[in-house]
Amino acid sequence: MTRTSFVPRDPGFAGRVEASFGRQAFMGHLGVELVRVAPGEVDLMVPFHEGLTQQHGFFHAGVAATIADSAAGYAALSLFSPGTGILTTEFKINFLAPARGERLVARGRAVKSGRTLTVCQSEVAAVSDGAETLVAIGLFTLMQVAGLED
Amino acid sequence: MTRTSFVPRDPGFAGRVEASFGRQAFMGHLGVELVRVAPGEVDLMVPFHEGLTQQHGFFHAGVAATIADSAAGYAALSLFSPGTGILTTEFKINFLAPARGERLVARGRAVKSGRTLTVCQSEVAAVSDGAETLVAIGLFTLMQVAGLED
Amino acid sequence: MTRTSFVPRDPGFAGRVEASFGRQAFMGHLGVELVRVAPGEVDLMVPFHEGLTQQHGFFHAGVAATIADSAAGYAALSLFSPGTGILTTEFKINFLAPARGERLVARGRAVKSGRTLTVCQSEVAAVSDGAETLVAIGLFTLMQVAGLED
Amino acid sequence: MTRTSFVPRDPGFAGRVEASFGRQAFMGHLGVELVRVAPGEVDLMVPFHEGLTQQHGFFHAGVAATIADSAAGYAALSLFSPGTGILTTEFKINFLAPARGERLVARGRAVKSGRTLTVCQSEVAAVSDGAETLVAIGLFTLMQVAGLED
Repeated sequence: MTRTSFVPRDPGFAGRVEASFGRQAFMGHLGVELVRVAPGEVDLMVPFHEGLTQQHGFFHAGVAATIADSAAGYAALSLFSPGTGILTTEFKINFLAPARGERLVARGRAVKSGRTLTVCQSEVAAVSDGAETLVAIGLFTLMQVAGLED
Repeated sequence: MTRTSFVPRDPGFAGRVEASFGRQAFMGHLGVELVRVAPGEVDLMVPFHEGLTQQHGFFHAGVAATIADSAAGYAALSLFSPGTGILTTEFKINFLAPARGERLVARGRAVKSGRTLTVCQSEVAAVSDGAETLVAIGLFTLMQVAGLED
Repeated sequence: MTRTSFVPRDPGFAGRVEASFGRQAFMGHLGVELVRVAPGEVDLMVPFHEGLTQQHGFFHAGVAATIADSAAGYAALSLFSPGTGILTTEFKINFLAPARGERLVARGRAVKSGRTLTVCQSEVAAVSDGAETLVAIGLFTLMQVAGLED
Repeated sequence: MTRTSFVPRDPGFAGRVEASFGRQAFMGHLGVELVRVAPGEVDLMVPFHEGLTQQHGFFHAGVAATIADSAAGYAALSLFSPGTGILTTEFKINFLAPARGERLVARGRAVKSGRTLTVCQSEVAAVSDGAETLVAIGLFTLMQVAGLED
């Protein structure tokens, strides 16, 4: 995919992503960790546990979709102007392989950062014995909202 | 939307959906309940609790997406032949309003049930003081897989 | 699907949709006709001709996607404020059956009309000997843009 | 994006893509040209002409979606077994910038090639005075169908 580099509008972008992530109780409920923050790039990780499984014992598609969405959202937020908040407008995700392994990693990357809308891509990989398998790929539209502090 | 009525290929479709739902530990972890099963139609419900929230205190988009996906998946499974299992191939979801309320309800409906692929639609509503607000709408592609017992 | 009725912000909405449609040369190139305009609802129709086919002689998926997108876009535009224009932000479409017949009909319907973004759904049916087959269903996000006359 | 290299199951993959492309009358009607075929990779190009425009004189979103879909479909077909045909199951596309320029280029790339389903990504760029602008990005699900010669 075409990769662009982005210049953050908010020099405090990393602290802002960390603070907002810390306020998402759902991330804590699932055990998701913030692994990396760069301008337009955020990686998340969630270790396997029984509470995250579907009927065959793998990670539930909802877990993969959730961390893909959060990684994309924080990749977008890292590029937003100070004093604005974020809403997920919509997303689409394809599941490529069963999500089995010790952990899932989601990598959100900004593709286009506009004044109102930002488009990101996320890839989710399952890590098993150190080997990664790509299990999902998605496209996300995020909206910058003035006066909605994140 | 055009609505079709479907004839289940498995007379025991309802018990089968209930059994598979009971094996999805992630549903229990979120507190999701199976509310209704009919041929090509499944409703789920999740009561609000702190662990399901995003940074503004509403239901996280990942929760809405997860129950929309599960409702769509079980709507599809209700039409599958005995002895087959289900995989979510892909989905797309639009978020229409903040998901705030005492509970979320997801209604999955089959649109087209083919030999290999089934397309479903899900709507997610937030219920607050008895009034419903449509908060998300999505399209889902589910795959019938032989030899994968659900 | 949940259906809402909408009140147009521009009393001249129908003439505005017709005028913009008339300026889309691509619609003329494909032979698409504007069949019906109501607040939040637009129907388009395209008769079959050889130039619209894929390798098996049916309507190309790109034709179905194009009229689904235009029907959704004009359903959205019918609800916009005077003096604003429209951009398609993104869409997703599922193909349900081969698009064979004398004509295709696309029905775009607004689902949610917000200040900036409007979400629409479109269904595309193929008409053969007077009988309709649902061949595609999609979700569309349209953006109202100030200062971009349509 | 993670890039994989693919081994074609059909040594005559390039000729097969060219023959099928030649039978898509819609490609001719739009003036689309097949620029490049490699295993899991197909590029298409369409020069600007008046008949492809929307109301502001740029390429219509339907043109961008159509060539993105065809590039993805042929990228998938290049990896299919001999004697099988292709159907587009669904796709999703984000529009990133106005599609203005002398021509559009679509680059379809396989992401995952399975037994039944293949997932591809396409990017569409507008070329103006030799400079490229990314105008759309999409995800596509294609199905390999036995007994449907392409």
